[in-house]
Amino acid sequence: MEELIQKGIKAKKAATILAQLSTEQKNNVLEQAAKLIIEKSETILQANKKDLDTAHANNVKGALMDRLSLNKQRLEGIAEGLQQVASLEDPIGEVLSMNKRPNGLRIGQIRVPLGVIGIIYEARPNVTADAFALCLKTGNAVILRGGKEAINSNMAIVDVIREALQSQNVSMDAIQLVEDTSRDSAVGMMKLNQYLDVLIPRGGAGLIKTVVENSSVPVLETGVGNCHTYIDESADLKMAQSIAVNAKTHRPGVCNAMESLLVHASVADKILPPLCKELKKLNVEIRGDEKVVQLVPFALPAKEEDWATEYLDLILSIKVVSDLDEAIAHITKYGSSHSETIVTENYSNSQRFLHEVDAAAVYVNASTRFTDGFMFGFGAEIGISTQKLHARGPMGLKELTSTKYIIYGDGQVRS
Amino acid sequence: MEELIQKGIKAKKAATILAQLSTEQKNNVLEQAAKLIIEKSETILQANKKDLDTAHANNVKGALMDRLSLNKQRLEGIAEGLQQVASLEDPIGEVLSMNKRPNGLRIGQIRVPLGVIGIIYEARPNVTADAFALCLKTGNAVILRGGKEAINSNMAIVDVIREALQSQNVSMDAIQLVEDTSRDSAVGMMKLNQYLDVLIPRGGAGLIKTVVENSSVPVLETGVGNCHTYIDESADLKMAQSIAVNAKTHRPGVCNAMESLLVHASVADKILPPLCKELKKLNVEIRGDEKVVQLVPFALPAKEEDWATEYLDLILSIKVVSDLDEAIAHITKYGSSHSETIVTENYSNSQRFLHEVDAAAVYVNASTRFTDGFMFGFGAEIGISTQKLHARGPMGLKELTSTKYIIYGDGQVRS
Repeated sequence: MEELIQKGIKAKKAATILAQLSTEQKNNVLEQAAKLIIEKSETILQANKKDLDTAHANNVKGALMDRLSLNKQRLEGIAEGLQQVASLEDPIGEVLSMNKRPNGLRIGQIRVPLGVIGIIYEARPNVTADAFALCLKTGNAVILRGGKEAINSNMAIVDVIREALQSQNVSMDAIQLVEDTSRDSAVGMMKLNQYLDVLIPRGGAGLIKTVVENSSVPVLETGVGNCHTYIDESADLKMAQSIAVNAKTHRPGVCNAMESLLVHASVADKILPPLCKELKKLNVEIRGDEKVVQLVPFALPAKEEDWATEYLDLILSIKVVSDLDEAIAHITKYGSSHSETIVTENYSNSQRFLHEVDAAAVYVNASTRFTDGFMFGFGAEIGISTQKLHARGPMGLKELTSTKYIIYGDGQVRS
Repeated sequence: MEELIQKGIKAKKAATILAQLSTEQKNNVLEQAAKLIIEKSETILQANKKDLDTAHANNVKGALMDRLSLNKQRLEGIAEGLQQVASLEDPIGEVLSMNKRPNGLRIGQIRVPLGVIGIIYEARPNVTADAFALCLKTGNAVILRGGKEAINSNMAIVDVIREALQSQNVSMDAIQLVEDTSRDSAVGMMKLNQYLDVLIPRGGAGLIKTVVENSSVPVLETGVGNCHTYIDESADLKMAQSIAVNAKTHRPGVCNAMESLLVHASVADKILPPLCKELKKLNVEIRGDEKVVQLVPFALPAKEEDWATEYLDLILSIKVVSDLDEAIAHITKYGSSHSETIVTENYSNSQRFLHEVDAAAVYVNASTRFTDGFMFGFGAEIGISTQKLHARGPMGLKELTSTKYIIYGDGQVRS
């Protein structure tokens, strides 16, 4: 806890400086950090090797090992990411409104940094640089608490970034890494209200749930996506098949992938056999209701819990519904309010779906895979918010800002 | 807890209906509720009498008793408040942006209700109707958990509102009152993530602190205001005196009242004697630093804790500072980031104060008492946010909304 308090004090102090930096100063730091990531790549890769060796000794494998691994190409990607953020517009200082009141007061609302952002994440060293870039560009100080598996990699990356800050005469405390990677430090971050303005968990469902349930610091909840595709009676079936296949198989391990398919009863026998055949070829396991099992010989019977499951895998649950009402009711009951799409040629049904389905992103005739800050044109993404407060859907730079009222008077008092 | 879950289920169901109501339907409910509050005033006042009798028996006195009391005039005020909200513009459905992406997707961001709002408040029966009006107008369902002292008054007001809802064929579950007023029900609300999209505590600092520290439901923090007035070297001293007197004495018990005055050393001997004389006449107790005590014979010496105290009373702490830097540093250290004002004729100092002071509302040459939804022209107020996430400063109707992306495609898949 002492480490967190010390870092909190430093971050708060740095935040007051960062809020006043010019866009040019911030961009210079990002450009310099990008340059140093490449120049010091040997040092970073050596640190990463330590982490990989420990992971190997602990029998870590597969996707986890892949996420932890850095190489020249990935460091180039990280450097490019830093430069990309430098090229984005600076949201700080934007005047959102300015009104003159009857008493002569002129009240303006301007965009300001949040202050100090805490980020708790798992064993992905690239998040260290990504998160820093977005926080710096928005004038925020950041305290990072990454997974213990990546501690050496994270320390090496943070060292390089701090060198870049120093070279531009910007407080090095703009980025601080929590070196205590025990459970205690994560819990401590969640109670650090005095120093943190917001806490963002980045990682799996378990991490996010723990943070949401235990943090007294305001949280930006990201992540869980039990996304549906609904194929309506009037759908262009060729389009429907292409969207469903894309939404399920393009990248099954991410939150905007389809987990459940709903099909109108009147087109189920036409679309399901060819669609499921294609999905099977792509190694997707099908779990369906009774009608699906009748139509698709290789489909397994779905259980109640399938409808609520985010597989993040090549598995798909399919249900035949009698109409749009049943589709919307099903999504309302089981969905996670992330991304939902309808495939339809019926105007009224498209409008009802768009307005009655309560989710961060609701689509007509497109794959749910587009819910992403880059695809939405934000140029960056800190995560996809599934809460309704502050930000909903893909979060870019603007979502890392707050506002402030500035009021110009000439002696007004209240009567 | 069972009561909360049942009410949560009903509220969630009502919210899906409320989100689709037309502005006219919502306004009709508000008009009808205003009418019924007057028509049924005898019933409400009888219920209020029960609460007042209990409070009297429990030796409740002063401001608390006053807040709890209803009478014909106050009920007329409540009815007027309902009508006023009906007359405001409906924010739901507003299109915040609509962009066409290179792949042809049209991505729009529209304003939608938050969903279900929980409000925990103390013994102020007027909040029951106020909060309902703002929530209904923004298409949100509301679960109210008021103080036990006002339970009979609250039940009577909620009955009338539910009758108004029913008369307009809108789900009565748009408003629900938690009848269990034990500590358990407040704690239960703080953990009701499955049903509540946001929790708003309205009341004293103790209540707000408890909710912020214990709620896993996202909280809109309102309230605490340790507000400063800084009189700069170049200030128009007549204006400075008028602003300081207004900020301190116009309504000392509210969050935007001044609690601490900072005065530039070069004008301290000119402004402090006459200003403190006027404040003394208005029964303000002065607590000052050494220089203040020298200049003002009746000033008491301030202790360290005075600088951090929100008195909410006719008490003022005063400190003489050597320059703008010291003033800003003092505000950064002791302020609560609510409302801060500088009185100055110096352009550069006004700009530095506006941009370097980190608060929800920062003023030049005006009283901090203007930080208020009505004074800002919002036509309504649910509270003044002192957090940086979601909303900052006075919160009107827009702050009770979220957003949603709606995306029009023609078969786009991600490659």
